[in-house]
Amino acid sequence: MTPHPDPRKGAAVKAADRAHVFHSWSAQALIDPLAVAGAQGAYFWDYDGNRFLDFTSGLVFSNIGYQHPKVVAAVQEQAGRLATFAPGFAVDVRSEAARLIAERTPGDLDRIFFTNGGAEAVENAVRMARLHTGRHKVLSAYRSYHGATATAIHLTGDPRRWPSDTGAAGVVHFWAPFLYRSPFHSADEAQECERALAHLEDTIVFEGPGTVAAIVLETVPGTAGIMPPPPGYLAGVRELCDRHGVVLILDEVMAGFGRTGRWFAAEHYDVVPDLLTFAKGVNSGYVPLGGVAIGPEIAATFERRPYPGGLTYSGHPLACAAAVATIRAMAEEGVVEAADRLGAEVLGPGLRELAERHPSVGEVRGLGAFWALELVRDRRTREPLVPYGAVGEANAPMAAFTAACRERGLWPFVTMNRTHVVPACTLTDAEAKEGLAALDAALCVADEHTG
Amino acid sequence: MTPHPDPRKGAAVKAADRAHVFHSWSAQALIDPLAVAGAQGAYFWDYDGNRFLDFTSGLVFSNIGYQHPKVVAAVQEQAGRLATFAPGFAVDVRSEAARLIAERTPGDLDRIFFTNGGAEAVENAVRMARLHTGRHKVLSAYRSYHGATATAIHLTGDPRRWPSDTGAAGVVHFWAPFLYRSPFHSADEAQECERALAHLEDTIVFEGPGTVAAIVLETVPGTAGIMPPPPGYLAGVRELCDRHGVVLILDEVMAGFGRTGRWFAAEHYDVVPDLLTFAKGVNSGYVPLGGVAIGPEIAATFERRPYPGGLTYSGHPLACAAAVATIRAMAEEGVVEAADRLGAEVLGPGLRELAERHPSVGEVRGLGAFWALELVRDRRTREPLVPYGAVGEANAPMAAFTAACRERGLWPFVTMNRTHVVPACTLTDAEAKEGLAALDAALCVADEHTG
Repeated sequence: MTPHPDPRKGAAVKAADRAHVFHSWSAQALIDPLAVAGAQGAYFWDYDGNRFLDFTSGLVFSNIGYQHPKVVAAVQEQAGRLATFAPGFAVDVRSEAARLIAERTPGDLDRIFFTNGGAEAVENAVRMARLHTGRHKVLSAYRSYHGATATAIHLTGDPRRWPSDTGAAGVVHFWAPFLYRSPFHSADEAQECERALAHLEDTIVFEGPGTVAAIVLETVPGTAGIMPPPPGYLAGVRELCDRHGVVLILDEVMAGFGRTGRWFAAEHYDVVPDLLTFAKGVNSGYVPLGGVAIGPEIAATFERRPYPGGLTYSGHPLACAAAVATIRAMAEEGVVEAADRLGAEVLGPGLRELAERHPSVGEVRGLGAFWALELVRDRRTREPLVPYGAVGEANAPMAAFTAACRERGLWPFVTMNRTHVVPACTLTDAEAKEGLAALDAALCVADEHTG
Repeated sequence: MTPHPDPRKGAAVKAADRAHVFHSWSAQALIDPLAVAGAQGAYFWDYDGNRFLDFTSGLVFSNIGYQHPKVVAAVQEQAGRLATFAPGFAVDVRSEAARLIAERTPGDLDRIFFTNGGAEAVENAVRMARLHTGRHKVLSAYRSYHGATATAIHLTGDPRRWPSDTGAAGVVHFWAPFLYRSPFHSADEAQECERALAHLEDTIVFEGPGTVAAIVLETVPGTAGIMPPPPGYLAGVRELCDRHGVVLILDEVMAGFGRTGRWFAAEHYDVVPDLLTFAKGVNSGYVPLGGVAIGPEIAATFERRPYPGGLTYSGHPLACAAAVATIRAMAEEGVVEAADRLGAEVLGPGLRELAERHPSVGEVRGLGAFWALELVRDRRTREPLVPYGAVGEANAPMAAFTAACRERGLWPFVTMNRTHVVPACTLTDAEAKEGLAALDAALCVADEHTG
């Protein structure tokens, strides 16, 4: 836990990165990636002696924190025993990972199809829904992220879809509830829920219920803004799906495995989907893993009819061993309960207290280890601190906020006009307070752009 | 290496598998997956005391063999140091893996975009080609496999595409050269090459050259039948691409990293693509990893314009550490050269010798550790031993062949009317002879269905 500075190595790592690594979502000449030397728990450090409190938990995947000794040991043990094996076999850790996941998924989602990550999970869930129903269209929300392979990026509702969407794959976007920027001009949560459900049903009816295979929703939308749905909304979507013969796919790639203070966010809303996608928290990203939990009706469809999908590393033993160890450690150490308490007693109150003092904070939303601060120029008009999809000079206020956090040893998750507070679920109260103090200082920078 | 039987554990592993694991490409009630207890080198074993020589190397990914001590040690060391970290940073093993890959890719393919596997590599290569050219259509071959996400399965040319293809994504299939079942009624390889190139150019011209973003080809098609292209074909494709402003994507997910006796199969044909996809052999599947090697022209496109694609585990440290160790061990131990010699001196001659004695063998094709036997009812008519896409009773002859191999301790790769001989590149001569003897016996079963 004591970073050992080695700036020359850091410079070499970065030089090789700039020469040979092509980075996601980036203009390659305009990025300056920090060279990371190590990580432990909720912290990471560079080669220059700087340590950062990570309020991003990677890309919201390190729910159990970095370098958890039990997960590290399990990966090492499995590597020595059977690092890899093809998917068409029964393997002890593959079976056990599936069992542990199935025990925790809501309701009767008892069969697990493993993938390498969330995008492939969404690809396969949509395929299952289309073949199960014999229908083609899939509905998803405008404020959403579902991954970047062809089907997953079609479903996504954020600007990352624009340059890559090849169209015509049967995706229809609708508006999900979001009271702070209500698409329905609602006055309160009950009205937002009612209007959002009426809008969704209208969309189904006008698209033709007999053509709609599935509705895909993040149980709590993540990168799109961490917007817990109003009471009754997901139950209403479930009822619409049942009435129109539509498959309900809940995407819990980000929200699952403790992030919201429950094993799955669906528990908060007492809703059981037909399919549930997961990744990230399932093994806190120690080895790439994702999957689809499948309910009995769709599983029955593929009992005697081949399921036409697969991948070389489905149920990868090393990834499954990491999942077994992660889930067991989370259960033994009460990580899910800790995330629940962290949200209710520390992050929620602490962030609301910041909002009271900083005019740039328009709204605080979230639960568990899953929070968003909406930064605005004006609390009354709710004008975002930067425009939707801003880059370069237009994004300067958010860039200044980011820099201010980093100067104070906090690595923030920043997207659009928001900062998300999405640390490890194992964050201690002292670490939370350290991060809140850094946010407090950085919000003073954001405040300068208000009013 | 001494299997320790434990049938009760095997039964428990299988019961949990059947209760909770949903398998790729399968009717779940009709499969009976073998419970695997361990693996080493070119062998694996079950819980009942049976050991198998693996002529599949998993799904053609374990090029260096199972449980290679240097790769295992590297995975264990990296797990203890930094198992995972987000993609937006420079990480030593990520930089080093990219450098080692870039050093080995043909020509000037010097920038590496990492994915979790081959399908995502193809998805991203196509996206890069479309954005680079501003064109939409992508051409691929009817006998091909490129993965099972939406774009990758569109491009695929085998029956696995049929149930999942949602159409309209701008994919056009053409016929690549395959003299044994020539689509062009050619008399020899030179004619097949010439006619295949004319057919491809006609396809480009009739689709509209200004609409074609890319041609995607497996350098040596893998699961589709291991068909090394005739001399001059790939050079001809390269010339067509240059003339029409089309991006050439070579898919080396299966053929790369030693499989053909070269680091990349493109070396055999002296062709440099604009993009090259890889996975599997890059780290022999110890940790899920794939990627795209990018040439300078396409890299330049994304120097100041953001590349719109990414994934949570791009450049996963544990996967990259496995790649670094695998590539170094392959170089130190001469694994690529060993595969070349294995093909030229052992497998090639041995398989041709079997073909002389077994009327069911219509053709032997391949190179390195990458061979196919085409099984036929009649050598003269070349009628396949089972029809294209046969299942159930129609597939009985191939099922009997498979069972006969397994009875003799050989785990064969069987697809359609073919068996592929795709063992670890590290296979010893003695292991090769053991496998050839088992094939010899099993081909007697296939012979019963001829004539």
